[in-house]
Amino acid sequence: MTSAAGLFDKAGYHTTNMAQLASAVGLGKPTLYHYFSGKDEILFWIHEEFIDPLIAKAELHRQAGLSASEELRLIMRDIIALMETHRGHVRVFFEHQRELGGEHQTSIRSKRDQYEAMVEAIVARGVSQGEFSTTNERLATLAIFGVCNWSYQWYRSGGDHTTDELADFFHDLVTNGLAAPAPKARP
Amino acid sequence: MTSAAGLFDKAGYHTTNMAQLASAVGLGKPTLYHYFSGKDEILFWIHEEFIDPLIAKAELHRQAGLSASEELRLIMRDIIALMETHRGHVRVFFEHQRELGGEHQTSIRSKRDQYEAMVEAIVARGVSQGEFSTTNERLATLAIFGVCNWSYQWYRSGGDHTTDELADFFHDLVTNGLAAPAPKARP
Repeated sequence: MTSAAGLFDKAGYHTTNMAQLASAVGLGKPTLYHYFSGKDEILFWIHEEFIDPLIAKAELHRQAGLSASEELRLIMRDIIALMETHRGHVRVFFEHQRELGGEHQTSIRSKRDQYEAMVEAIVARGVSQGEFSTTNERLATLAIFGVCNWSYQWYRSGGDHTTDELADFFHDLVTNGLAAPAPKARP
Repeated sequence: MTSAAGLFDKAGYHTTNMAQLASAVGLGKPTLYHYFSGKDEILFWIHEEFIDPLIAKAELHRQAGLSASEELRLIMRDIIALMETHRGHVRVFFEHQRELGGEHQTSIRSKRDQYEAMVEAIVARGVSQGEFSTTNERLATLAIFGVCNWSYQWYRSGGDHTTDELADFFHDLVTNGLAAPAPKARP
């Protein structure tokens, strides 16, 4: 899956064929077809490998009893870390989701929606506990994903910052932006 | 160009051929080849149509004598408006830039860098004028692009908010996050 994601990232999903995918992992084409019905199915499993660990980690963070802000920090670190560890997976996930077949697309969409709902629930908890303030939790969530996910376009390995440092910078910017106004001092 | 961007958006760049592009605008294939050397060149012009107006508008905003925050609001409105008016262009720009040929890619990259530098200059001005506060103007700029650009993944025409309303929501979140801390009250 990692080889396939790397090839799709480098050469493009459309220009890569099953023979190249088989050769990249030292298999014959018939052997690869024994495991996968075709390129579509490999694309599906790349999506799974991307989204399943994110959901599992978010579930662990949820159970850790953190403030909404600190839980959000871990989420943002998880996502941006993928730009270092799963670059090909990420690009494939963002750019080729529309090309998944019907049933596969439904399954991946439902997991993506689940993950988005988990993040929105953190924002909502922050609001209800007085840590955050926003008129629209859904749009605030989309802003958080925007800041994190967009890094797939510009992140380069070996740059000035670790992925955790990047995530912490963005986290501070977003949570500062979402911070509930301080209670007014009594006269 | 608009028809081509629409087709690329709907059917994918790789699966669309010159015959389909010609037919979409009521031309014969030879006539289309009279104007464009091939799909690559059409891809290049779609990029141009996307980035040139953004730069021209940013230049106008720069000359309008606005606060950094208000100039940033107009920039964010410009970008998100494209999700309504140039959806296909945007997707092509973000997802197929790597597939442009050498000289075309250099030209587009240089314009993209120019636009990013214009936005970073607004952030820097906000910092120097005491309106914003951030430890890293480059990363703050990437956060702004992330919030705006990511909307190409989720924006749907006819939703609950106009593109200006979306931009204003994101603008308030980001500028609130970048706001310089209020001067401490004197004891």
